Amino acid sequence: MDNYNALVSVEQLTNKLVTNLIDRAIAFKSGATTKLTRPVYAMNLFFENSTRTHTSFEMAERKLGMTVLDFNAQASSTSKGETLSDTLKTVQAIGVDVVTVRHPQNDYYQPLLADNRFQMTLVNAGDGSGQHPSQCLLDLMTIFEEFGHFTDLKVVICGDLRHSRVARSNMQVLSQLGAILYFAGPAEWFAPEFAHYGQVVDLERILPEVDVVMLLRIQHERFAADATLSDAAFHTQYGLTIARAAQLKPSAIWLHPAPVNRDVEIATELVEAPQSRIFKQMTNGVFMRMAIIEHLLEQRHLIQH
Amino acid sequence: MDNYNALVSVEQLTNKLVTNLIDRAIAFKSGATTKLTRPVYAMNLFFENSTRTHTSFEMAERKLGMTVLDFNAQASSTSKGETLSDTLKTVQAIGVDVVTVRHPQNDYYQPLLADNRFQMTLVNAGDGSGQHPSQCLLDLMTIFEEFGHFTDLKVVICGDLRHSRVARSNMQVLSQLGAILYFAGPAEWFAPEFAHYGQVVDLERILPEVDVVMLLRIQHERFAADATLSDAAFHTQYGLTIARAAQLKPSAIWLHPAPVNRDVEIATELVEAPQSRIFKQMTNGVFMRMAIIEHLLEQRHLIQH
Amino acid sequence: MDNYNALVSVEQLTNKLVTNLIDRAIAFKSGATTKLTRPVYAMNLFFENSTRTHTSFEMAERKLGMTVLDFNAQASSTSKGETLSDTLKTVQAIGVDVVTVRHPQNDYYQPLLADNRFQMTLVNAGDGSGQHPSQCLLDLMTIFEEFGHFTDLKVVICGDLRHSRVARSNMQVLSQLGAILYFAGPAEWFAPEFAHYGQVVDLERILPEVDVVMLLRIQHERFAADATLSDAAFHTQYGLTIARAAQLKPSAIWLHPAPVNRDVEIATELVEAPQSRIFKQMTNGVFMRMAIIEHLLEQRHLIQH
Repeated sequence: MDNYNALVSVEQLTNKLVTNLIDRAIAFKSGATTKLTRPVYAMNLFFENSTRTHTSFEMAERKLGMTVLDFNAQASSTSKGETLSDTLKTVQAIGVDVVTVRHPQNDYYQPLLADNRFQMTLVNAGDGSGQHPSQCLLDLMTIFEEFGHFTDLKVVICGDLRHSRVARSNMQVLSQLGAILYFAGPAEWFAPEFAHYGQVVDLERILPEVDVVMLLRIQHERFAADATLSDAAFHTQYGLTIARAAQLKPSAIWLHPAPVNRDVEIATELVEAPQSRIFKQMTNGVFMRMAIIEHLLEQRHLIQH
Repeated sequence: MDNYNALVSVEQLTNKLVTNLIDRAIAFKSGATTKLTRPVYAMNLFFENSTRTHTSFEMAERKLGMTVLDFNAQASSTSKGETLSDTLKTVQAIGVDVVTVRHPQNDYYQPLLADNRFQMTLVNAGDGSGQHPSQCLLDLMTIFEEFGHFTDLKVVICGDLRHSRVARSNMQVLSQLGAILYFAGPAEWFAPEFAHYGQVVDLERILPEVDVVMLLRIQHERFAADATLSDAAFHTQYGLTIARAAQLKPSAIWLHPAPVNRDVEIATELVEAPQSRIFKQMTNGVFMRMAIIEHLLEQRHLIQH
Repeated sequence: MDNYNALVSVEQLTNKLVTNLIDRAIAFKSGATTKLTRPVYAMNLFFENSTRTHTSFEMAERKLGMTVLDFNAQASSTSKGETLSDTLKTVQAIGVDVVTVRHPQNDYYQPLLADNRFQMTLVNAGDGSGQHPSQCLLDLMTIFEEFGHFTDLKVVICGDLRHSRVARSNMQVLSQLGAILYFAGPAEWFAPEFAHYGQVVDLERILPEVDVVMLLRIQHERFAADATLSDAAFHTQYGLTIARAAQLKPSAIWLHPAPVNRDVEIATELVEAPQSRIFKQMTNGVFMRMAIIEHLLEQRHLIQH
């Protein structure tokens, strides 16, 4: 993870690091514990609404024995015009050691990492339509738990690839780990560079072959829905319907980052079906975030050995 | 408490359970402590504004040694259209053990209790105009502390009975415990079924006889005030005025769930008067909620013996 | 600190108390610790937006080993019309021992201190345009750390003196401690009583002589900016520009309570310059607040000896 103490982008993820983090997350899931060398203070600065990721990071921090300080974006000094950088340096001056940040602006972290007065440990919990590396890693953990490897696994990524750099990042890491990728969805949602990582396919044709269906969330809150495609039409044409799920191998699984738009990306009945790993992803997220934060704290000698 | 690990309604309260919970709450008040068998994680999901009940549950959880995770409804994924059920299953997947929920929708808990994938301990902290069992139990504790019994205690319930299923629930439990009930207030606020539990009386006539005056809150935030009855007129006709309080026996007490509308349900001077138990109710609430949560955790073997 | 267990105003600060608090804050900064005689519960009730002060109090409380309960003004019962006094007595009844309060109303604390049923420890974290004693004390600590004394230190206070009783309070305490005070800024921002504490000067003339430049924040959120003076014009005429900073002695420092309006009160380049103590003020704030709260808890015998 480069010269700074941060996980901000999947660009930082070598195959070795992914493997180490998955191993450690699985160990945490099996009850492994860790000890801090001194009290460590964390703050989760979320400038967008979130239940899942916010709670997951807080749980991970508490399970690592850290002290979590309250942050409420609506009641913060950003309303007085304070910049993100000034807010973060403020909490650093107050003694916070680790921050997770979700912020609507893409690449918000670049000026921070370029500023040698910014010295906290940083985990990017999502920047606009940009990176969300802990989400990528918990997906990888969930796939690895199921199959024990990535090489030659067939993964189809379905849905709103256009607005999702997460999807683009997942492509990159899954491809680097040896998986075979397919993309499905409306033609206008594909970008030319996708060809580098996999092939655009007809969803019906590929379903009987794939091991993993990665569904993407339609982010209604980020942009108005296409006038040309209703929720029901999306579901029929590109969603995981009951009929499509029936074409999958019994060993295949489906993932979704949630919150789910029921009966749009996926039929309601499939959200908690036996082959769904959607709630398992949330469970795994806590342990993966423990592994990520522990890894970063180790570099600061804040973990006992 | 039935087949699920939840307290959602006073329908669950047998006399034996009420007695046990009051005994245990009084023990906690006297300094009794309890130990958890492992770290237990709690979250208070309040979808309506609250200081008293929210803080009381948080204090109870902390005094029981639980770890409390932050939840802010305004910053949660419900704004992305996530259902209550999905939000709760999310925090369950993340590792939360106990939730308290206040939600504007009556009976929100019914589908949860019918879903065997919902496995957290649940305490209903208020559903719309519906149930609020911990409030009922802290009222009972406060009455019991005063008189040591319920049999033949004379209790008058005054005020907005119409919009308050809490009031209806209190009638049921107090009646079941042997108290003698009277109701006072505007005639149009009574329902025929009240006759089952007690009699409608003229407030002036009954005051010299009663042991307990239970005032109900006029919920201005739930519905517009009756155009026909101003706050001042309500106070004069049905409120606990200084003149009415003077008619009470010296041993009589008055209760109010708070927040109080001063000089509407009760004269300002009476809120903290010697016979008021309004702030004592709040103090008792913490210990009663400790007893409730401990009772539910015992069934999951999370309490040391 | 008078007959009540509160720090609400700099009027309470004798020279001896200031010295004791600074000594203790510096000891905390060097690693001194303290122990509570029983669990102590704190709540920070902020009815105005704040990152710095809110987080600083929370960190201080946690470093003292206190349990901090959540309070979110927007989700509280004040929206149901509950008064501040009733909210505070509620959390007192629930078992909170220490509250810090920021509230838009000047002197909100006067009725509380006059009410002998209010028994919590109170630290005023800002009342409207009124007092903010912990901010004053952290400024004094930062100056003392630098120079080791106050006598004959030359301090110029620049900016929006008109709307800042904090500034007025700082004048009083610094003057009482023996510092020599100067005031700079628009003529219409001075009040006749300032003459009691120091002299109005031309900023350019005094800069080469002063030890400390105390910049004040222009509180855009409290009142509309003067139509007659743009941000840029204020900076040019009264702000700490790079040219003005160059006139200072190398040993001189500048302070600002933050959040900073960059390029208004101070040039961006000077915020983190070597002579700036702006972030050090924030660091010191935590230790000073530990000293304040410990001092108040000692009077309640809640600190072990």
